[in-house]
Order: sequence, then structure tokens, then C-alpha cells
Amino acid sequence: MKIAILPGDGIGPEIMAEAIKVLNVLDLKFEMETAPVGGAAYEAAGHPLPEATLKLALESDAVLFGAVGDWKYDKLERALRPEQAILGLRKNLGLFANFRPAICYPQLTHASSLKPELVAGLDILIIRELTGDIYFGQPRGRRTAVDGHFPGAEEAFDTMRYSRPEIERIAHVAFQAARLRNKRVTSVDKANVLETFQFWKDVVTEVHAQYPDVELDHMYVDNAAMQLVRAPKKFDVVVTGNMFGDILSDEAAMLTGSIGMLPSASLDKNNKGLYEPSHGSAPDIAGKGLANPLATILSAAMMLKFSLRQPEAAARIEAAVGAVLSQGLRTADIWSEGTQKVGTREMGDAVVAAI
Amino acid sequence: MKIAILPGDGIGPEIMAEAIKVLNVLDLKFEMETAPVGGAAYEAAGHPLPEATLKLALESDAVLFGAVGDWKYDKLERALRPEQAILGLRKNLGLFANFRPAICYPQLTHASSLKPELVAGLDILIIRELTGDIYFGQPRGRRTAVDGHFPGAEEAFDTMRYSRPEIERIAHVAFQAARLRNKRVTSVDKANVLETFQFWKDVVTEVHAQYPDVELDHMYVDNAAMQLVRAPKKFDVVVTGNMFGDILSDEAAMLTGSIGMLPSASLDKNNKGLYEPSHGSAPDIAGKGLANPLATILSAAMMLKFSLRQPEAAARIEAAVGAVLSQGLRTADIWSEGTQKVGTREMGDAVVAAI
Ligand SMILES: CC(C)[C@H](C(=O)O)[C@@H](O)C(=O)O
Ligand SMILES: CC(C)[C@H](C(=O)O)[C@@H](O)C(=O)O
Repeated sequence: MKIAILPGDGIGPEIMAEAIKVLNVLDLKFEMETAPVGGAAYEAAGHPLPEATLKLALESDAVLFGAVGDWKYDKLERALRPEQAILGLRKNLGLFANFRPAICYPQLTHASSLKPELVAGLDILIIRELTGDIYFGQPRGRRTAVDGHFPGAEEAFDTMRYSRPEIERIAHVAFQAARLRNKRVTSVDKANVLETFQFWKDVVTEVHAQYPDVELDHMYVDNAAMQLVRAPKKFDVVVTGNMFGDILSDEAAMLTGSIGMLPSASLDKNNKGLYEPSHGSAPDIAGKGLANPLATILSAAMMLKFSLRQPEAAARIEAAVGAVLSQGLRTADIWSEGTQKVGTREMGDAVVAAI
Repeated sequence: MKIAILPGDGIGPEIMAEAIKVLNVLDLKFEMETAPVGGAAYEAAGHPLPEATLKLALESDAVLFGAVGDWKYDKLERALRPEQAILGLRKNLGLFANFRPAICYPQLTHASSLKPELVAGLDILIIRELTGDIYFGQPRGRRTAVDGHFPGAEEAFDTMRYSRPEIERIAHVAFQAARLRNKRVTSVDKANVLETFQFWKDVVTEVHAQYPDVELDHMYVDNAAMQLVRAPKKFDVVVTGNMFGDILSDEAAMLTGSIGMLPSASLDKNNKGLYEPSHGSAPDIAGKGLANPLATILSAAMMLKFSLRQPEAAARIEAAVGAVLSQGLRTADIWSEGTQKVGTREMGDAVVAAI
């Protein structure tokens, strides 16, 4: 088994170092190989996703990804900006199913913006389709408008689209995930306005016929954005498209107050996957040893579970993370009065010790 | 001056009756004419936006709108569903600028899902472009995919688009609105993925050159969805496109905890406008006298201010709403221990009395 390690930019290398420490202590049989990605790869090789990095990702059984992006690349043409690496990996690896759990750790309930009673025990799973929608639809670009409000004016445009098999496969993923949880799926669409999401709703409803034991409801995206704030615990599994999923999964993660704790997985049809923390590259604190490595460590646990078939090793990591939280150790992002503030490395060491 | 009164469905007629009572007591000179819209219009005339209703709206100086929609119309073909009335009015009246204030009333801070310190004194203004974007872009529909992941498969698609003059005019609206507030505009885009929103960002930046006294920053939509939860008071004016604005304005409204209090305005280039509460038609409580009429009453105040040039009358309404809240009167949606629960009609009467 081979794991591609892509640390990336900003706090990426620091948090990745802790995840590697944790993986090493488990004494499992796999090889790890590191490659640059994002801004770091642009600096080293002139492209955010160099051929060699993509090749490594393609031939590995799983990819552990840190974070990419820095303001200093804002002026680059879009194709060379760090985020393109992540879009390129998703597309080339066929990672269509993004799992974004939003969990509120009992030790961290107070860290949420929401009142504690609304988030205590929160455990929802957002499943975002990741290789379709307006992210990749063609045609797109700039042109002269031929109709609309200002014919003759310069305009920019993109194409939103979903095909039946794309919707079917992500719907199956959602219903199957719900079977392992509370057996409820909320499909989020905008069927009242968009052709794409009327079709989405129709196809999800058809696939649901194969899962009579799972409850399905449909919700408009604007309403979902509200209900997440009002009563997040009413959700179990939420399934939606790439664009709506981008927005709602971040909203849901932030609701928990501990985005520094949340892992994510992006899977292909064979459960090969890319695993990364839900937070970004935080260039403002990079290199200072302040970043919370737990989301990356928990991403490594997800990787062991989903792609490397090592559920016991994954459980050991998860238990160790619970233990360090219960010991009162906190990085700055989740620190509160009465707990012990630690840096990135101390947090990683504590997880290793707990294992 | 003529006002078109479109009560609509669900709680629409009840809340509208209270707004009319309030308008009448101000003793201003204008005519009001009522017409059916939404499901009510479909029942009466076979279409959610009958010719006669559209004609009335076109020839009036302002439109006061209740709410539309009911589950019982879910099975109708899309063109006949109640929401099409609102899309048709926006398009035919050229209502491109949607003002959605998210205000947390001091008397209602506790009603928010968020911790009181995060929302106390909250006063942000979301300005949503309302006649462009993927809502109206052509082509759209179903077809056989010729490329993408599954060539040959059935797919549905929509077109996102913005032209330069569309972006320019909404940017001007936002900068001018910011001048009357805290002089800060956050433009929300997804320039890292979408051509349309790279263009949006470029054009907003260009227009900003004419407003050196206003501060502008840019934020990705996923980050905006997070920052609204994390620290909503950091925003002043938020300007964004139709689709992102749909999601973010509802999220922001729900953050305040008092969506039953929030009015909205949708304006054309001459400040003719449609005014409606930010909440929906709530068919579950329709006809029971439970609905909160204050958002509609405050929408009437916005109408007096923006379209009918009666700022003093508007201020009288707003002061009266503040007074009834301070008296402790609350409809069920905003009720809490120690306050006095009242129905729709009593609330309207109390506002009239306070005027
Ligand atoms: C960086 C960006 C292209 C990406 C996305 O929009 O998918 C990010 O926001 C994410 O959610 O992983
Ligand atoms: C009813 C629907 C078409 C509408 C929209 O999406 O614009 C509504 O959600 C709104 O925000 O007014």
C-alpha cells in the first residue's frame, strides 16, 4: 500500500508532519511518498499540480493532503493558482464523493457560535458531489451577449450541468452512508429555479426506491442554509451538488465552532480517496507552530478506514484524539479558559502518546 | 400614487391586512388596488401571475407583496407554480436590486440561534442582484450529454451569466448604500472557480474606483457562509449575485433569530419597487391568526421610504414597531418567557395604536 503525502502551503507542512508522526507510530505496513502541491509546487516546478505529483497521486492507494493557497499567488493567472491543484486532483482521480462530517465534540461545545443546546451532540454528514456541476461544465468564458438585458455587452458565463449517472452514483453513496447512521437523507436542490436541480431531485427520488429503509426529504438550498443555523441537529445525511455543497459544508463546519477538528474524504468509485482537513492553509499563522493538527490527524484516520481497510487503526487514532481533548489540551483555535494551550507539535506528540 | 397590493397565499392575506391597516391610519394620499398572485391567482385565473395582476404591478408606483406558495401546488408543472409569480414580477418590472437587511432587534437578541454577544446590535445589509445570473440565463433544459463524464447520458443544464452593465449597476447600488452606513462593502464571489464571478470581481473592483471613500473587500461565497456564522457583525454591506444572494440572505436573516421581523425591497433603476417580508407563506399556520405581521408592516415602511418618498411616515411606522416590542408584545415566532403572546390582528392593532 502506498500513500501520497501532499503537504501544500501555509500551515500544510506543519500539520502534515504531525499526521505522519501519528501514522508512523501505528506500525502498519505502507509506504509514504511526499510531493509538492499548490503554491509550493508552483515555486518548485512552475505549476500547482506538476506531472510528477499527479502521477504519484494516481499510482497511490490514497492521498493525504494538507492545504493549499496563499495571498501571494492572488495575482497569478487562474490556471496557475494553488486551488487549481485540488480541482485537478479531483478531476483526474475521479473523486466524485466528498464526505464532510460536521461534528461537535462534547469537549468543545462552547466553541460554537451557536447556543450550546443547539449543537451539543451534533453529528451530521454532508455528502457533496465533487466532479460535476458548474465547477467543470463547458462551455464557459467571456463573450459578447447576444440576448438578456444588455445585448452587445461584454459578459462572462459558466455552465451548470448534471447527467443522470452522476446523480445516481452520488445518491447511492448518500443512501448507503445513511444506512450506517440514522437512515435519513436530505437532498438539497433548487428545483424551483434550476433545470439541473429539478433533474437532480427527480433522479434522487428514483434511486430512493431502492432504499425503502432510508427516509428521504428534499429541501431548497436557501432553506437548508437557514435550517442549518436554526436546528442543525435535525439533519442526518445531507446530499447535494458541488456548488451548493461547497457553501453548505463550510457553513455546517463553522457551526460546530471547531473547524480545526474536522476531517474530510473525497472518494472515487473504488474507495480510493484524497483526505484533507476541512480548514484552509491559514497563511497568517503558517510556520508559527500554532495550527491545530487534529483535523489532519483525523483525516489520516478516515483514510485508514475508507481506503486502506484498517478500521482498527483508525479507531485507535480517533480514541487518542478524544483522550487528548479530555486531558484538556487545546491549540489556540479551540482554547478556552481552564484548558491548557499547546502548539502544533505538542498536540501531535500528545496524540502519539495517547496511542 | 398607486400601490398594488398582492396578498398571495398562506399567511399572506392575514399579514397584508395588518399592513393595510397601518398604511390607512397614516392618512397619506395614495390609492391601493388588490390583485391575486401565486397559488391564489392560479385558483382564480389559472396562472400564478395573471395578465391583470402584472398590468396592475406595472402601472403602480410600488408593489406590496405578501407571500406565495403552498405544498398543494408542488405537483403542478413548474411554469404554473406559485414562485413563478415572483420571478415573473422581478423580470417584468426590472427589479434588479434586492435589499435584504439582517437586523437583530435589541428586544429579540435571545431569539437568535447564535450567542447573544455575536448578534447584539447586528445590522447588516445584503444587496442581491435579482434579474440575472443562473436564474434567467439561457440556454437551459435537458439534453443528451456530448462530453463530460458520461457522454451519451441524459443531462440537465443551466447557464450562469453576468454582463458588465448588470454588474456595474448593482455595484453602484451597493457603494451608494454603504455611503449611508458604515462605508464598507464585501463583494461575494467564487472567482477561484467561476468565469462569471471572476468577471464580477473585476467589474466591482473597477466601479469601486469611483467610491474611494468606501472600503471594498472580496470574499469567496463558501467563506462568506462561514463568516456570517462566526462573526456576522464584521459585515456592513454585502453585495452578491442572484444565486449566492438567495442563500446568504436567508442564512443571514435566520442568524438574527427574528426572520418574522425582516422586510425586503426589490428595486428597479427608478426606485420603483416590490416590498415583501423575508419569510415565506407558512401554509402550516395560515388562517390561524398566529403569523407575525411585523415584517410586512416594516416592508410597507421601506416602501414609503424608497418608492413613495415619505420618509417621515416610514419613520413613524418603524418607531411604532419598536414601541410594541418594548411593550413586550410578541407573536408566537418571537415569544419568550416573560413577554405577552399576541395574535396577528392584535399585533397590527398595537402598531396602529402606537402610531
Ligand atoms: C479551493 C476551492 C476551489 C475549493 C472548492 O470550491 O471546491 C474549496 O473551497 C473546497 O471546498 O475544497
Ligand atoms: C421562491 C424562489 C424562486 C425565490 C428565489 O429563489 O429567489 C425565493 O427563494 C426568494 O429568495 O425570494
